[in-house]
Amino acid sequence: MITAARIKQIKSLTQKKFRKELGLFVVEGEKAVNELLLHKNWEINHIFALESWLNENVIPGNIPFDRVSGKELSRISSLTTPNSVLALVNIPEWDIRNVNPSIDITLMLDNIQDPGNMGTIIRTADWFGIDNIICSENTVEVFNPKVIQATMGSFMRVKVFYTSLKKYLETLPEPLPVMGAMLDGENLYKTELPDKGILITGNESQGISAEILKLINRKIHIPLFHKRGKTQQPESLNAGVATGIILSQLRNFNG
Amino acid sequence: MITAARIKQIKSLTQKKFRKELGLFVVEGEKAVNELLLHKNWEINHIFALESWLNENVIPGNIPFDRVSGKELSRISSLTTPNSVLALVNIPEWDIRNVNPSIDITLMLDNIQDPGNMGTIIRTADWFGIDNIICSENTVEVFNPKVIQATMGSFMRVKVFYTSLKKYLETLPEPLPVMGAMLDGENLYKTELPDKGILITGNESQGISAEILKLINRKIHIPLFHKRGKTQQPESLNAGVATGIILSQLRNFNG
Repeated sequence: MITAARIKQIKSLTQKKFRKELGLFVVEGEKAVNELLLHKNWEINHIFALESWLNENVIPGNIPFDRVSGKELSRISSLTTPNSVLALVNIPEWDIRNVNPSIDITLMLDNIQDPGNMGTIIRTADWFGIDNIICSENTVEVFNPKVIQATMGSFMRVKVFYTSLKKYLETLPEPLPVMGAMLDGENLYKTELPDKGILITGNESQGISAEILKLINRKIHIPLFHKRGKTQQPESLNAGVATGIILSQLRNFNG
Repeated sequence: MITAARIKQIKSLTQKKFRKELGLFVVEGEKAVNELLLHKNWEINHIFALESWLNENVIPGNIPFDRVSGKELSRISSLTTPNSVLALVNIPEWDIRNVNPSIDITLMLDNIQDPGNMGTIIRTADWFGIDNIICSENTVEVFNPKVIQATMGSFMRVKVFYTSLKKYLETLPEPLPVMGAMLDGENLYKTELPDKGILITGNESQGISAEILKLINRKIHIPLFHKRGKTQQPESLNAGVATGIILSQLRNFNG
């Protein structure tokens, strides 16, 4: 049994304001929760699960849990088809000073708005072994339930930070390649690519903001495939797809 | 003024059944409608526009139109923030027999379900000069308004067909490379890639279906970037991102 007040509290976690206030976010689904239970870096605050899930899984003694009915689960879930388990998880405190941009590729997101895109970008970063993503403060929050869902579990392996990108880039400890995808950039397939540095992905419709553009020192371009007889051409790629193509090339160019 | 019956009819076009019955689909937004007006291959059936749009655009004499208020537009729109113009467009009749898979790369989609993914894949195909996409009959329909929106106009330049993929592949006029992204495939960056053939993208969670898997003769793998110290790894990439990475490599390998 879950009380009405508890349901209200859990539902409030779809909003950033309440996630911040309570220091909690929601993870749904067997696969993600089962994986969370194996991670030492994540603290589960509470588990709500169907009897069927509880019968098949062991919850460590220090994690409180409630057995809920399918109906109750659907009341606290933000999925259209709720799974068998939902976890409240403590929002971790990560320190951006632990990120060393000089030793690897770091991804930077400038005002990504769509939760699905954000989740897909985190999932893609995970595939290509990116440990840290640094986001502008107006980028959609990683602990938004739609973002968490779209990461397909990758939120557990990639750290996401929020800060002023301008300040961050202006105070880098040493000069680094700062890459961005732009129409007037070098052909991604015909240029030497670095194995360290920062790759910036911009907003879905406006691209990279003017103040950040100025700080890019390696403009990269994903070539459009020209076809004879086509007068109209697409203007851009989806932000997540473009990020995937560039990361893939960065990781395989030097390998 | 639009009648209630007309509103109901337009709203019904969010459903495939009614799109088929009426032979119409909806395109929203200035950019897309303005581009449609330039295309000879697309027949606009009717335009509904705000006075502001009508004042700035010329509609050919043979296209009927209605001046609508912002309130009326929001009643027929399926966007949360309606634009200034909405067009009803005749669904074209394309003949799959005009596709020649032996002369270029053709994309094949096996049961893509998410309209956003579908739209993104069409947009990506357009960027990489893919003229034709052949879909399984259970793939989400291209004229779904969410798909059209996510293509960002690319639906105008890429033809999308629906058929039995199995039959299509079994009756190819000549042997062709049939590629699919699979974990046990060849490294995308360490193998010779063809400049003609078929690339298959599978369903978002199940991947490529068993009966189609058997017909793949070139398994391709986008390498996961291994990092020391990481015990858990992602299982897959988003279908649209994976398609983008492979198409990008196919188009740039031989150039």
